[in-house]
Amino acid sequence: MRCEIIAVGTELLMGQTLNTNARNIATELFALGVGVYYHTVVGDNEARLKEVFKNSLERVDLIILSGGLGPTDDDITRDIVAEVLELPLQRNEYWVKKMEEFFRRFKRPMTQINLRQAMVPKGGTLLPNDRGTAPGIYLEKGAQIIVLLPGPPRELAPMFKEQVIPRLQEKLGEQKDLGVLKSRVLRVVGLGESAMVEKIKPILDSQDNPTIAPLAKGAEVHLRLTARERSGERAETLLQEKLQEIREVLGDYIYGEGEETLEMAVTKLLRDKAKTIAAAESCSGGLLSSRFTDVPGSSACFLGGAVTYSNEAKSNLLGVEENLLNTVGAVSAEVASAMAGGARKLFKTDIGIGITGIAGPGGATPEKAVGLTFIALEADDCTLCRRYQFWGSRLEIKERVTQAALYLLRLYLLGKLQENDTRSGDENKVD
Amino acid sequence: MRCEIIAVGTELLMGQTLNTNARNIATELFALGVGVYYHTVVGDNEARLKEVFKNSLERVDLIILSGGLGPTDDDITRDIVAEVLELPLQRNEYWVKKMEEFFRRFKRPMTQINLRQAMVPKGGTLLPNDRGTAPGIYLEKGAQIIVLLPGPPRELAPMFKEQVIPRLQEKLGEQKDLGVLKSRVLRVVGLGESAMVEKIKPILDSQDNPTIAPLAKGAEVHLRLTARERSGERAETLLQEKLQEIREVLGDYIYGEGEETLEMAVTKLLRDKAKTIAAAESCSGGLLSSRFTDVPGSSACFLGGAVTYSNEAKSNLLGVEENLLNTVGAVSAEVASAMAGGARKLFKTDIGIGITGIAGPGGATPEKAVGLTFIALEADDCTLCRRYQFWGSRLEIKERVTQAALYLLRLYLLGKLQENDTRSGDENKVD
Repeated sequence: MRCEIIAVGTELLMGQTLNTNARNIATELFALGVGVYYHTVVGDNEARLKEVFKNSLERVDLIILSGGLGPTDDDITRDIVAEVLELPLQRNEYWVKKMEEFFRRFKRPMTQINLRQAMVPKGGTLLPNDRGTAPGIYLEKGAQIIVLLPGPPRELAPMFKEQVIPRLQEKLGEQKDLGVLKSRVLRVVGLGESAMVEKIKPILDSQDNPTIAPLAKGAEVHLRLTARERSGERAETLLQEKLQEIREVLGDYIYGEGEETLEMAVTKLLRDKAKTIAAAESCSGGLLSSRFTDVPGSSACFLGGAVTYSNEAKSNLLGVEENLLNTVGAVSAEVASAMAGGARKLFKTDIGIGITGIAGPGGATPEKAVGLTFIALEADDCTLCRRYQFWGSRLEIKERVTQAALYLLRLYLLGKLQENDTRSGDENKVD
Repeated sequence: MRCEIIAVGTELLMGQTLNTNARNIATELFALGVGVYYHTVVGDNEARLKEVFKNSLERVDLIILSGGLGPTDDDITRDIVAEVLELPLQRNEYWVKKMEEFFRRFKRPMTQINLRQAMVPKGGTLLPNDRGTAPGIYLEKGAQIIVLLPGPPRELAPMFKEQVIPRLQEKLGEQKDLGVLKSRVLRVVGLGESAMVEKIKPILDSQDNPTIAPLAKGAEVHLRLTARERSGERAETLLQEKLQEIREVLGDYIYGEGEETLEMAVTKLLRDKAKTIAAAESCSGGLLSSRFTDVPGSSACFLGGAVTYSNEAKSNLLGVEENLLNTVGAVSAEVASAMAGGARKLFKTDIGIGITGIAGPGGATPEKAVGLTFIALEADDCTLCRRYQFWGSRLEIKERVTQAALYLLRLYLLGKLQENDTRSGDENKVD
């Protein structure tokens, strides 16, 4: 079953509103095994909506329209659909009663224009709306299905889930078109998109079912596998086989699946190994602490952080020697290491992380460019510091710095770092 | 000029990613006076992309495509556009060099597949990309304009703004299609959307030129004014008059204009008044520090932060009395105040901010619900603490807590807070 999602509304076209309805509908349809081939947004304009709807009737089996079901003159979806399909509009008395009750309850007068909302193209089914006056409409014309839904997400979402999906499932069953789609996302860190693609090229080149799609997402890369099969079980087996194959090649570069963020994965490792951690941050300015504390329950292992921008704070709080700051400078391996040790001592943790660098746009010197960063890790069995050269805006650098710190921590927790490891951080680039 | 925005990417179709690019492009085009008539999303599929692009060539003057410019086989936008327009692809040597430099700088090998990214349809102009290896393409064919942009928003947005908009402006000028649109955004904090709308209702109801559109944005509200006139000067005058009118009603609720964030506005106030500040954060977990340090040059006034999740850290670092923690508990006005004082002493600043609360989802008690937060401010001339009850997910609560802290700080710096101000924070709700 091929589907197009058409959102009607000038506020969407102008960019005032994000098209979250299409995203949510697509996600649900995908899980049903319906192929969504097009999303379209068009304004409250008769000629253009007519053109878009006609075009859609030529290319898909299932058309889902949202928006334009309100009572006012610029709500035209219902009328256009009826006109193009050459179906007369009929008044649904059940809905007229419902609206009368609704208006009585809220002590507002029901106006003549509201009656438009009770009109349904002949042969269509009215989908009641618990949260507003605009009902949806479900309509079959020949082999095609047309669904009209109200625009507000809080009205659309439950109506789609409770009233449209069951009808679609039944239809898919009748058509024996019930191929199940299952998908998984692998999350990769420490490899850029093209480097990752290079590594799994043979797998990508020979992909068929499941399909495999790489996607760069900020400072990491995601890999989406999608299997389509008659049975969910069979789809799951195909997925598992391919996941295994990819895991063998990418190994520890894969840190998680689905919605798991790198900070979640690292927090889980910390908890599994019963380790505690603290951070001392200069150029990342608290972002690493904030990422840790984004994870529910992180307080069990993340004991605290110090944001020490100034040299004075570095020595007062973390005990970084002033001598060091004056000789090698705040942005140095020595200071990063002293910060890591200082944080560890201050918060009495197993692991300390120290970060110092130049987030820009100011602060660069001829020897030290914007983006130069040192990240140090100190624990009983490991002391190391790595040097990185990041690029981008101030916010991007902060993002990449914290990504690199989490990645380093992950390697340590997996036992992949040697004591006094002296490799440059750029060998494990994450951007 | 009629425009269609086509986003290419299966991840968009499937609902993995929201189509924020179309929204952002539409907003900018609107300001130029270009009519955006369609948004379309289509997958990385040759036949369907070809069909969508051909269809678009029939109905608009300006086509903006985003996505599908990467190096891998499923990046097909460039090839399809060249094929449909019957233009040969030519290698752009400037971009080959740029990519070589890029890969050399990051000590990564440039692969053969990257060379695809330097191919440009004959007659097209390459738009350099500072943030990635995929350049954009600007192309005129007959009276039509076709623009190709990379999919990642952080690459697309600056390219569109800096390289595409000026070209479109020039084109619109040539076509004398240049009724000038000018717009301004006012940023409001401390008032919810409906409360703000209520306050400026007479102005909203009588709006004509400029038009005025309120938009809730996370924990604040933006107000976009758009004037259309023959001359830019006249449009500017209309805007200034209306801005003045709104400022008179909303006063200090307006903290900034355009791209200015609340942390930028507060940092500017701190610098203007030559005040320094430090933060002690519990439930906000470093996010306030991170927001301060997002602002370039913030090191002049933001001297540091302590993220003290545990009670131990609160007493060791900040000198919060254990007795207090054991009697009134960590989430209390007393502890917030002690944290503010502790941060101020620790970093030797003029102002200290203390934040303690329950970010959830765990940690609530019968007396203290998720979202309960105390924010304290200490300075020579002011000591106060406010109680807030926030709602939402853990991340939303962190966002709202830091927004409230910045708002409180702003009021203090404007001299709008009394010493020992005891009002509940909820009177100045920001959510």
